[in-house]
Amino acid sequence: MENFNYSIPTEVYFGKGQIKNLGNVIKRYGNKVLVVYGGGSIKKIGLYDEMIKILKENNISFVELSNIAPNPRIESVREGIKLCRENNIEVVLPVGGGSTIDCAKIIAAGVNYDNDPWDIVLDSSKITTVLPIITILTLSATGSEMDPFAVISDMSKNEKLGIGNDKMKPKVSILDPEYTYSVPKNQTAAGTADIMSHIFENYFNNTKEAFIQARTAEGLLKTCIKYGKIAIEEPNNYEARANLMWASSLAINGLISYGTKGTWSVHPMEHELSAFYDITHGVGLAILTPHWMRYVLNDDTLYKFVEYGINVWDLDKTLDKYTIANTAIDKTAEFFKEIGIPSTLREVGIGEENFEIMAQKAVKSGLKYGFKPLTSQDVVNIYKASL
Amino acid sequence: MENFNYSIPTEVYFGKGQIKNLGNVIKRYGNKVLVVYGGGSIKKIGLYDEMIKILKENNISFVELSNIAPNPRIESVREGIKLCRENNIEVVLPVGGGSTIDCAKIIAAGVNYDNDPWDIVLDSSKITTVLPIITILTLSATGSEMDPFAVISDMSKNEKLGIGNDKMKPKVSILDPEYTYSVPKNQTAAGTADIMSHIFENYFNNTKEAFIQARTAEGLLKTCIKYGKIAIEEPNNYEARANLMWASSLAINGLISYGTKGTWSVHPMEHELSAFYDITHGVGLAILTPHWMRYVLNDDTLYKFVEYGINVWDLDKTLDKYTIANTAIDKTAEFFKEIGIPSTLREVGIGEENFEIMAQKAVKSGLKYGFKPLTSQDVVNIYKASL
Repeated sequence: MENFNYSIPTEVYFGKGQIKNLGNVIKRYGNKVLVVYGGGSIKKIGLYDEMIKILKENNISFVELSNIAPNPRIESVREGIKLCRENNIEVVLPVGGGSTIDCAKIIAAGVNYDNDPWDIVLDSSKITTVLPIITILTLSATGSEMDPFAVISDMSKNEKLGIGNDKMKPKVSILDPEYTYSVPKNQTAAGTADIMSHIFENYFNNTKEAFIQARTAEGLLKTCIKYGKIAIEEPNNYEARANLMWASSLAINGLISYGTKGTWSVHPMEHELSAFYDITHGVGLAILTPHWMRYVLNDDTLYKFVEYGINVWDLDKTLDKYTIANTAIDKTAEFFKEIGIPSTLREVGIGEENFEIMAQKAVKSGLKYGFKPLTSQDVVNIYKASL
Repeated sequence: MENFNYSIPTEVYFGKGQIKNLGNVIKRYGNKVLVVYGGGSIKKIGLYDEMIKILKENNISFVELSNIAPNPRIESVREGIKLCRENNIEVVLPVGGGSTIDCAKIIAAGVNYDNDPWDIVLDSSKITTVLPIITILTLSATGSEMDPFAVISDMSKNEKLGIGNDKMKPKVSILDPEYTYSVPKNQTAAGTADIMSHIFENYFNNTKEAFIQARTAEGLLKTCIKYGKIAIEEPNNYEARANLMWASSLAINGLISYGTKGTWSVHPMEHELSAFYDITHGVGLAILTPHWMRYVLNDDTLYKFVEYGINVWDLDKTLDKYTIANTAIDKTAEFFKEIGIPSTLREVGIGEENFEIMAQKAVKSGLKYGFKPLTSQDVVNIYKASL
């Protein structure tokens, strides 16, 4: 196990009706709120009205920033910062999925930064102070509700960049699984794939004997496999939505990565797909993951895939090791297919036209320090295998 | 899954040499420290000297309270409170195992309470403010380094009581597994049993579909079973000590209990053994646990023991369910024996002379709300089976 400095300060109000705490929670930090949200889904499910009612009852003033895009844009961040400054905002309140929360994080971090916020996306050490962030989650996927990360795009440059800074961890997150009942099947599937990818990125590391972390990660993967399917078949199944929602937070809040070392592999490759083609992040991850697994499987990495096969997919431990590993990878691909995610890049409109440039960009995020070090040629090979 | 309000604010500096952060960490909270410790073990391993050197280098003034007993006494708490008041102490720094940390917690909570601190042991709602607590852990067992609980004894009354208050959660804990290299085999075993008991108390609950929590608990149990044995055979095995230490914190910091409902069963029964006979807590837990398991196994609870057998002990899932359950219980008892813990109450000098009175005291902690509700007669039966 590696040394680590553990800090997961986000408070979580989890479960049915937890929004009742919103007023008191906000007032710990201020009385002027920027409400950030995406399209109209929070209005459809009645959450918008409920929230506004609570804000008014508690004499909390607010301004709104809506229409945050699924891969949130730097333009929205700029607009949010302007609103915060004009209105002396004290608390940023994203209501939505990861994109909305990510956008809110950079707004909160950008308010006290004098130059353009894209600077802090490029270099998070420029962040000084961050306005308190309180989130209300409506999609189980990115884990942004409990982590320090944000991913922001500048489509004019085909750039989609992830940054992290501990100061951007939300103070409080309200996680009511019922808010995800109306999430459509395809988004539930993509969200499940996103959660699983976060777990994979942490699980496939080279740290020996981070035993607790590995077993916890396997438990989270089993959770996604079991409840991802149920949530798609029965959208209003509370237990399925609850387990998925909590898995989304624990997958990436540090619990399974503290004590391990390594950089992520599939996310940087996928970010280029989204940056160039604006596809759904979770779909890109699900397409690439099995091909990445096959590509990095070798005599050195075999032990980890065997653990994965036995502990997550309940494969017979007496089988040949490569059989276990390959079966586990097949099952991963089958699972994504079964929950309705496309299996190939062509299905989502991606050809090989940009593979070279995307690969060159992807390796800049440190793929050479991943579970198996990857060069840009390796990335091209994985993209090609995913066609 | 039940609703829950998650808050685990303790920061952890985990790993080799993390004491280097001590000076900076203390100075966030103050410059006047009460150092609390037990016997001489922290001096033998050089930790005392290292800590004092850091305090002096950082111009942090300190007073000392030593000789904290393994089942810490209210008398030590009173003495600590007096020292805090006389010296305007700003930070309480326990250096040791759970007893030392527990004692420090009630000291920190008692400084601003005007009457005798036994009052707040009886009623934790009387706690108003708590001095910041920073711990340096030297024994993997109670999890006090990351939880809100303390157990304090008044031997004049044969009382050993546990209390919990979120304000008593340590601000920071320094967890260096190397400090546990010198822990003797019997204490390593008792500590492992204590950790496992915390996990069992949370795992055996009646909440359906707290799936994540159950799988995480199973991973922690596997960690104890694997590394408990290794740590006893090879006391200087870093990975074993590290995994046990981190398991001790995660077993009881809320991670596996948030989202579940129920009260603990074996701890209240054991507290009476320690209160009457001053035995090692972990030993009492290990003796009682398999008998408690056998006693509560029935058609209603069977499913949980089957999960336990398959997921923790890797038992063949095609076997008869009662065979799985009973084998899992047998394996639990064998494991405790294998790591050198006595198997019967008689071996630790306990006869049936106080069973009735101990049982009556034990049920007061809410045993009727446990995994299987228990009456005082049930408790007597379990004590008798453990003779």
